[in-house]
Amino acid sequence: MKKFKIGIIGATGYTGSELVRWLQYHPAVTINAITSESRTGELFSDVHSSFAGVADFKLISAADALEMSLDLVFLALPHGVSMGFARQFLEKNIPVVDLSGDFRLSSAAVYTHWYNKTHTYPEGLEMAEYGMPELNRVHIAGARLVSCPGCYPTGSILPLTPLLKKGVIRSGSIIIDAKSGTTGAGVKASETTHFSNVNDNFRAYGLKNHRHTVEIEEKLQEAASRQTSELSSTAVHMPEAGNVDALSHRAHTGTNKGQADNKRDNYQNGTIGPVQFTPHLLPVDRGILSTIYAEPSEAAAGSMTRTFLTDILTEAYVSEPFIRIGKTPPSLKDIRGTNLVRIYADFDERTNRMILVSAIDNLVKGSSGQAIQCMNLMLGLPEATALQSTALYP
Amino acid sequence: MKKFKIGIIGATGYTGSELVRWLQYHPAVTINAITSESRTGELFSDVHSSFAGVADFKLISAADALEMSLDLVFLALPHGVSMGFARQFLEKNIPVVDLSGDFRLSSAAVYTHWYNKTHTYPEGLEMAEYGMPELNRVHIAGARLVSCPGCYPTGSILPLTPLLKKGVIRSGSIIIDAKSGTTGAGVKASETTHFSNVNDNFRAYGLKNHRHTVEIEEKLQEAASRQTSELSSTAVHMPEAGNVDALSHRAHTGTNKGQADNKRDNYQNGTIGPVQFTPHLLPVDRGILSTIYAEPSEAAAGSMTRTFLTDILTEAYVSEPFIRIGKTPPSLKDIRGTNLVRIYADFDERTNRMILVSAIDNLVKGSSGQAIQCMNLMLGLPEATALQSTALYP
Amino acid sequence: MKKFKIGIIGATGYTGSELVRWLQYHPAVTINAITSESRTGELFSDVHSSFAGVADFKLISAADALEMSLDLVFLALPHGVSMGFARQFLEKNIPVVDLSGDFRLSSAAVYTHWYNKTHTYPEGLEMAEYGMPELNRVHIAGARLVSCPGCYPTGSILPLTPLLKKGVIRSGSIIIDAKSGTTGAGVKASETTHFSNVNDNFRAYGLKNHRHTVEIEEKLQEAASRQTSELSSTAVHMPEAGNVDALSHRAHTGTNKGQADNKRDNYQNGTIGPVQFTPHLLPVDRGILSTIYAEPSEAAAGSMTRTFLTDILTEAYVSEPFIRIGKTPPSLKDIRGTNLVRIYADFDERTNRMILVSAIDNLVKGSSGQAIQCMNLMLGLPEATALQSTALYP
Amino acid sequence: MKKFKIGIIGATGYTGSELVRWLQYHPAVTINAITSESRTGELFSDVHSSFAGVADFKLISAADALEMSLDLVFLALPHGVSMGFARQFLEKNIPVVDLSGDFRLSSAAVYTHWYNKTHTYPEGLEMAEYGMPELNRVHIAGARLVSCPGCYPTGSILPLTPLLKKGVIRSGSIIIDAKSGTTGAGVKASETTHFSNVNDNFRAYGLKNHRHTVEIEEKLQEAASRQTSELSSTAVHMPEAGNVDALSHRAHTGTNKGQADNKRDNYQNGTIGPVQFTPHLLPVDRGILSTIYAEPSEAAAGSMTRTFLTDILTEAYVSEPFIRIGKTPPSLKDIRGTNLVRIYADFDERTNRMILVSAIDNLVKGSSGQAIQCMNLMLGLPEATALQSTALYP
Repeated sequence: MKKFKIGIIGATGYTGSELVRWLQYHPAVTINAITSESRTGELFSDVHSSFAGVADFKLISAADALEMSLDLVFLALPHGVSMGFARQFLEKNIPVVDLSGDFRLSSAAVYTHWYNKTHTYPEGLEMAEYGMPELNRVHIAGARLVSCPGCYPTGSILPLTPLLKKGVIRSGSIIIDAKSGTTGAGVKASETTHFSNVNDNFRAYGLKNHRHTVEIEEKLQEAASRQTSELSSTAVHMPEAGNVDALSHRAHTGTNKGQADNKRDNYQNGTIGPVQFTPHLLPVDRGILSTIYAEPSEAAAGSMTRTFLTDILTEAYVSEPFIRIGKTPPSLKDIRGTNLVRIYADFDERTNRMILVSAIDNLVKGSSGQAIQCMNLMLGLPEATALQSTALYP
Repeated sequence: MKKFKIGIIGATGYTGSELVRWLQYHPAVTINAITSESRTGELFSDVHSSFAGVADFKLISAADALEMSLDLVFLALPHGVSMGFARQFLEKNIPVVDLSGDFRLSSAAVYTHWYNKTHTYPEGLEMAEYGMPELNRVHIAGARLVSCPGCYPTGSILPLTPLLKKGVIRSGSIIIDAKSGTTGAGVKASETTHFSNVNDNFRAYGLKNHRHTVEIEEKLQEAASRQTSELSSTAVHMPEAGNVDALSHRAHTGTNKGQADNKRDNYQNGTIGPVQFTPHLLPVDRGILSTIYAEPSEAAAGSMTRTFLTDILTEAYVSEPFIRIGKTPPSLKDIRGTNLVRIYADFDERTNRMILVSAIDNLVKGSSGQAIQCMNLMLGLPEATALQSTALYP
Repeated sequence: MKKFKIGIIGATGYTGSELVRWLQYHPAVTINAITSESRTGELFSDVHSSFAGVADFKLISAADALEMSLDLVFLALPHGVSMGFARQFLEKNIPVVDLSGDFRLSSAAVYTHWYNKTHTYPEGLEMAEYGMPELNRVHIAGARLVSCPGCYPTGSILPLTPLLKKGVIRSGSIIIDAKSGTTGAGVKASETTHFSNVNDNFRAYGLKNHRHTVEIEEKLQEAASRQTSELSSTAVHMPEAGNVDALSHRAHTGTNKGQADNKRDNYQNGTIGPVQFTPHLLPVDRGILSTIYAEPSEAAAGSMTRTFLTDILTEAYVSEPFIRIGKTPPSLKDIRGTNLVRIYADFDERTNRMILVSAIDNLVKGSSGQAIQCMNLMLGLPEATALQSTALYP
Repeated sequence: MKKFKIGIIGATGYTGSELVRWLQYHPAVTINAITSESRTGELFSDVHSSFAGVADFKLISAADALEMSLDLVFLALPHGVSMGFARQFLEKNIPVVDLSGDFRLSSAAVYTHWYNKTHTYPEGLEMAEYGMPELNRVHIAGARLVSCPGCYPTGSILPLTPLLKKGVIRSGSIIIDAKSGTTGAGVKASETTHFSNVNDNFRAYGLKNHRHTVEIEEKLQEAASRQTSELSSTAVHMPEAGNVDALSHRAHTGTNKGQADNKRDNYQNGTIGPVQFTPHLLPVDRGILSTIYAEPSEAAAGSMTRTFLTDILTEAYVSEPFIRIGKTPPSLKDIRGTNLVRIYADFDERTNRMILVSAIDNLVKGSSGQAIQCMNLMLGLPEATALQSTALYP
């Protein structure tokens, strides 16, 4: 059997090592290139000790990888760095799965606004498909450049989208209180991830302005705009892509006076309204648990029960290999090390609010696992190939 | 100097050991009795190894403690058990500081509803003062029976009360997403607190129906009813105490149809509306971090900024020995082992929501420390006596 | 392809869940029975939440499993309970892989001495093969009853055996300072594994008398008795199996006077001498790291270097699929979740001591993984089938 | 009451913050200077968030502190940096308590050998007193420069010294297997202390050559040389200080041939022989648990029991405010956050070995607490002033 030749560009980070962890046992691909500019010539296992005697690839430079006839490359690079390499590999006609934030947003302007960087490859942005197979399977399969979702967005978008499509969520009512393990902050030592600052500790960070906020809003807005439910009769007007002030961002420069009322009105014309997103740092390695609050739309007010919500999610995801709608709230260890998304939905009659709880492994479904899921689609392989596993619990 | 003679009824749990940790260095009291029914005759340090050679008290029975002429007793007992002992010590004319949930709620009926138990000492309920010195100092000083707040309520009520008194929070908009260390679940081994189920893990629990919900709602409602701010002109109608269906609990049996709208209207007459409270279990020993979301009331809509909120809190608590209003969100280690409450307040213009973050040590300010604060008041001692300490960080 | 029908007797513990974690993806077997007496009729995933929607087997009773025509069963039961079931399945002609301690020791008398229990199936003891494939491959392949090694013994025996076979270790000089994660203590909640007693904590336990001591001594003695090295010319006299006082256990009742000298002499006639074994409890889920000290035998005194030791180990294990001899000391995460054994050997000229460091995952190579390795041998399958994986790091 | 004016030179590390944690509540001193060169002008609480609103000292430069009339300074600086400042403060006639490794060893030559640095202040080395009050109380009280012990040495020297003084330990038989929390590695973020590399993990490091080895050996040798016991009649010949090859270090360049035998002989003339010291990194913040193995000397061989050892230790330390000899092995949480040393001693008849287990908090008794104990002595204050506390457990 012919195997596809894969390259991993950027091997020293966690997304790089996690790609190797899965791909080395993939029956239809071989890893032909693993690159690192800072450690060229060393072994991959010199960087990641757990691979010693298991995967001792020699690290090459990205420049050398560009000269190989690879079938697909993963870019496991920091945002800002990734876009340049994406262009180079695409110009060599090598399909790219990018794990950075460089191609996730709707326009170069929005990118610049939230990432504080000029986008040097807007054509890439234009052509990139959002790498969330459950919502975008067909486009991924035919894409040359796939942009893998952020970890927080993955855990937020999957539970919310089916409900937004059904029109059961009131505009402006979504609050995502997310808690992440430290690997989300990367492999590089920093004060933030110093053991003594994390162990037996817990904190909120990035209040109000985490970059994943805009990614969540844009993708949820798309979902809401594709409402299919009979519950909703609201006409949908998509905000214009590329306009930074679209969606709710106008508020940044808005005056306070009367703001609340104006907003409440604005949301009525089909937008989901601004999403409140608050990340927290857990003393765990992997995993994001998102507790999501939302209020019922007027159309749905009378129908709300736990069963109603569970049914919508179950129906939406019944055939999905990696999504599980549960009877009880999931814990992080229920998905640790796997590509699974576990979702629990409930409705609190007393407060008139939905509560959704989702759990993903940020390094698998939140990045490298989902990236391989996309790769499988792009290469015409069964989507779940080499991604089946059970959580490491305990 | 004459020292007060103190008894600790129930010494095998964490509130018991934490009381000893602080009281043994208190300059104005002596610990004259520590009781345990199951381990009578053993040493306190046989139960709590960290006290070996430090506090080797002999454990006696509660019956023996009742015969001693004590100046005050702490009840560090499970709810349900505590009320009987409270009655006995009070009948002996010994003032009681109770750390259980038995005397926290407004009526025996509410107690039975949430604790699923008959209250056998409703006179105690009637006379008990809520042991939160910052909000109830004068009454505590003169009380015979003080009921110490729950750990979650402490972390929620203190940040919210000054804002509710000023009338700046919209009814029904309060969401408390709280994360607690495992000591809140007590000293007894259980599946919930089994190391392998907690370590490197995280989960939500008690969605919709945790007992602390009603305690939070009742106390916040009291605060709201004492609005002093010129911002609010709404007449305040306190729901009738003792009526289970008061506040928002009616919803339990309400129909769904049109529920949202009715609620929104109901909240206008001075009630705070139902509070959404979701606890989570952190892989840490101590500490509760509460992330609290709320929307501005109409009256306050135009004034909202981070400074506005910080000023209200600072003004309210400027003289408090144990409350700190911070410039950045606190972490649990910033208060670990102390009686401090750290609060951060922010306002998100984009979403039109307040975000409050509070951190307390559930075993200190959330129980035993606050109990000693009450004891100091009851005994006429300076309130902060023996409670000064800096967090154990790292 | 015909698949082998496998039963797992005792599914509520960690060895049970770990067997399922691996076996569900095994290409040549199917899991036909999972039993639990206490939770018969429930789903396996009701007991182990991480299997929800992944492996929802219905739990049956062991009695029902006995009536099925299974090709092999694993006994994932407590010691004492296991021996009875072993007899029953063997009488039905079903091969057994036992994960308890019931069949590990050399005789019923030794068993009774260390496990404080009468052995009810001594014929089983007689026929059981020790399930450590690297040292006993051929016998396992032909066995009807395989007794899987204890977790601590696995991490100690594998690094020491090649050195003992070469005769390079001085009698009586072996000290094993082992540190284990909490899953070694099992799934049942207890004070020992209560989160607050383990988290941010560390302790020694079982000093001098842990049951694994005798297992380690017996198996190391066997290895030493098979010395193949030209380095050693000492005649080997195996202590008589079944005699509790054999090996070094005589000391239990010996007098102290002159004891040290006597011992030092005794060791010369080919026994390894008593092994010092001290376990500790780590605040981690999985993994045993053993730091082993030993002095060179007289014969080896002149040859000792790090290279000398590394070469012996490398030579012994060069073809082993699951053993890695490293250039640096391993950490637990380098093997977390895998069937690997990582070993580092060093020699300290200054102190004239060998230092060996080994790392295993107690639930995989230390129990269920090694058990499956044995199953593969017994069923004539490639030994490493379905056991390849890379550590979950981070 | 007149208070002593104290300076803390170097405030950004953990020893600095820990000094403030204790000194701010000390009744007889005031903190008059806290210095940092990198963050001069900022608040101490900007660096250490847990002090916000608790100890908001302004950071000054060391140069400014030199101009103040301080009664004593602590140097909480890295080794190599400390010696220069020690000289400067001593020249200003200000007594110094140094927490670095700069003044712990016996000579500049030994220092250079193990710290790979030239010692620029050998006069300091000469005059420095080793700051372990239990063994050196009188000299500390009269010292101008006190050198605080390393954290590992503190946990090793205190349990071993009384036994060495009694002559009950065989030369060359001491093995210290020590396990430390991460704060020992300091406040600075590094790969070693990156959360994902420590959490749920464990490893050995510094095998054979950790700097604390020589400190332990030198101090233990001193203890052995002051043997007071009637058990020992061996003449004691102290190795010459300042000679790097003294003690056992000769072995570094020795040939292997016959080495073991030579060593065994050498130890007989009163030296303790080389000490095996192996540190490990625990996934905990604070604490060092040392498991120490040693063999009885010939003189003591007949006397060894647990009681015999416990009695020696109890007798030696019965009046010590911070040492506790326990009935069971201590855990790290039994001393977390305190200045206590907990020691357990046992004897294994079967193997003829002593096992000692000690537990200290590396940041308190292992550094800042012990430093304050020294300060109290130097200032003529009761030694335990402001250092009483009970462990933070849980």
